[in-house]
Amino acid sequence: MKKLSIGIDIGGINTVFGLVDEKGEFFGESTLSTKSYPAFGDYPKYVKDLSEALKAMLEGLDFEYEIVGMGIGAPNGNYNNNAIEQPANLWKYSDKDSGKDEGKRIFYLGEDLKKYMPEIPMFIVTNDANAATIGEMVFGNAKGLRDFFMVTLGTGLGSGFVANGEMIYGCDGFAGELGHITAIVGGRDCGCGKKGCLETYVSATGIKRTAFEIMAQMREPSPLRSVSFDDFDSALVSKAAAAGDPVALEIFRYTGEILGVALANASVIFSPEAIVLFGGAAKAGKLIFEPTKRYMEEHLLPTFKNQIDLLPSGIEDKNVAVLGAASLIWQKVN
Amino acid sequence: MKKLSIGIDIGGINTVFGLVDEKGEFFGESTLSTKSYPAFGDYPKYVKDLSEALKAMLEGLDFEYEIVGMGIGAPNGNYNNNAIEQPANLWKYSDKDSGKDEGKRIFYLGEDLKKYMPEIPMFIVTNDANAATIGEMVFGNAKGLRDFFMVTLGTGLGSGFVANGEMIYGCDGFAGELGHITAIVGGRDCGCGKKGCLETYVSATGIKRTAFEIMAQMREPSPLRSVSFDDFDSALVSKAAAAGDPVALEIFRYTGEILGVALANASVIFSPEAIVLFGGAAKAGKLIFEPTKRYMEEHLLPTFKNQIDLLPSGIEDKNVAVLGAASLIWQKVN
Repeated sequence: MKKLSIGIDIGGINTVFGLVDEKGEFFGESTLSTKSYPAFGDYPKYVKDLSEALKAMLEGLDFEYEIVGMGIGAPNGNYNNNAIEQPANLWKYSDKDSGKDEGKRIFYLGEDLKKYMPEIPMFIVTNDANAATIGEMVFGNAKGLRDFFMVTLGTGLGSGFVANGEMIYGCDGFAGELGHITAIVGGRDCGCGKKGCLETYVSATGIKRTAFEIMAQMREPSPLRSVSFDDFDSALVSKAAAAGDPVALEIFRYTGEILGVALANASVIFSPEAIVLFGGAAKAGKLIFEPTKRYMEEHLLPTFKNQIDLLPSGIEDKNVAVLGAASLIWQKVN
Repeated sequence: MKKLSIGIDIGGINTVFGLVDEKGEFFGESTLSTKSYPAFGDYPKYVKDLSEALKAMLEGLDFEYEIVGMGIGAPNGNYNNNAIEQPANLWKYSDKDSGKDEGKRIFYLGEDLKKYMPEIPMFIVTNDANAATIGEMVFGNAKGLRDFFMVTLGTGLGSGFVANGEMIYGCDGFAGELGHITAIVGGRDCGCGKKGCLETYVSATGIKRTAFEIMAQMREPSPLRSVSFDDFDSALVSKAAAAGDPVALEIFRYTGEILGVALANASVIFSPEAIVLFGGAAKAGKLIFEPTKRYMEEHLLPTFKNQIDLLPSGIEDKNVAVLGAASLIWQKVN
């Protein structure tokens, strides 16, 4: 009988889910629109519809199977209580809910799904970066490593830390927020309310902000100068840098310096075997890896120099978010 | 029969050792001069003499006992191989050893002591800050905590991190070097060869260096201005600050700012229940705790604010180094 894990990735636009065996092979994948359930009051219906979509996916299987558990990756997913706590883009209070306490928007998704699917033996909820980290440990380039961490570069910067072979969730389930270390005291405004957070420099939006600072600072002409802030996309920087544009190259150097120092700082605390860089901005490849590695080495204690591998993701060709969520279960049972 | 753990603290001047029961009570304590064995070639005799001193201490006991193990805290102590690797102030090559490779100064003290004391069932070596951290977890203010870290402020800055109830040693046994995160890019020269390391700002020597910077920057008179750099001791700053000296108060504020940002950064990665501050400089009490706490809170993600206790050590009245070393064994067996 084939053993399968259900992996669910909840984003603001879509909820993607799939069935994954212990080798990381997919057996079915489907989607439910998350944005069709925007309001606080929509959450019960979302849970019901999601459970039905999951059941439909299972009914489509034409072989004998056993579901070992369900892993869920979501923004602000909390491993300690299987809840999603105050997610920025999910199930917001609408006008008719006005006056409710934002602090109470805690969705016990693990428990709530269990009511519809009591046959599932295990539910694990965590945030998307932690799920991707476990995915990398179970199926990717961190396979077999007991001490490593992963940095995901998307719109923001997520991270997951593994020490002694175990994910670090911290006392409240919310550990691993490398994106919100203060990279520069008094630096750029961050959405979290602080200043100078790493993700305001190292992320797609951070690279865009850096681009405008560097354009102001340098005098060289650049194709980037013809695009407004509103129209700007960080992919333009990769394109210009690949063509040798000095402004774009300086943007990557600066980004690599800030990220390299942060990785070195985390490394002297953890002494990891490897660091995995993952996500949209990491796809710039050598443009981001080279300066990051150089500044990281420069800021490492001598005993750590040239010891820590800086790796790309080993699972980027698959749906990492779903694979990572499913791997939460495989890591637990194996 | 009383169960006892042997704790050994190896410093450049003295080796202090004692017998500790599982409640943290001492049953004998003694000392061997480390500095009488300065050269590489002295190491074998040091091991022999230490084992004899330990046996003499045990022979002095007038009750039935069982030794459960020996814990050793030493600079550059490596948990992974029970060795002391390239310690700066121990068993240096002398003139007659010249031409030897410094990188090979690795002393397998656990193994070497076992030859003289084969009846001891377990040997654990780690660095002094890690030993103090375990001591705090077993006997002190971090008792029962699964996620915390400790910062020891002495001549330098040491640290130990505990996550999921386990010490983080990292892949090479040398994790936990918070003193060598880069606090200020391009900052003060550090003995490790880097620039801007946290311990060049936050430690007894760091406070002294800050004092001279602040004296240059401010115009207010201060009793600190009458002392030369060579004669200066960081305890003078505590004394002046306690008397209200504005220059001394600014030195503590600046120290607290740099430490507070570093603690906040480590906290968003670990989400600890508490942080323990320990050692000479921590004895300045409110002078250092107040600004540190204030800047830490200012640089924490909102969800972490006012959640993390900043605590003094709970075992500072005892010989922490020996107690910590002994507790390595108690933590392992319990």
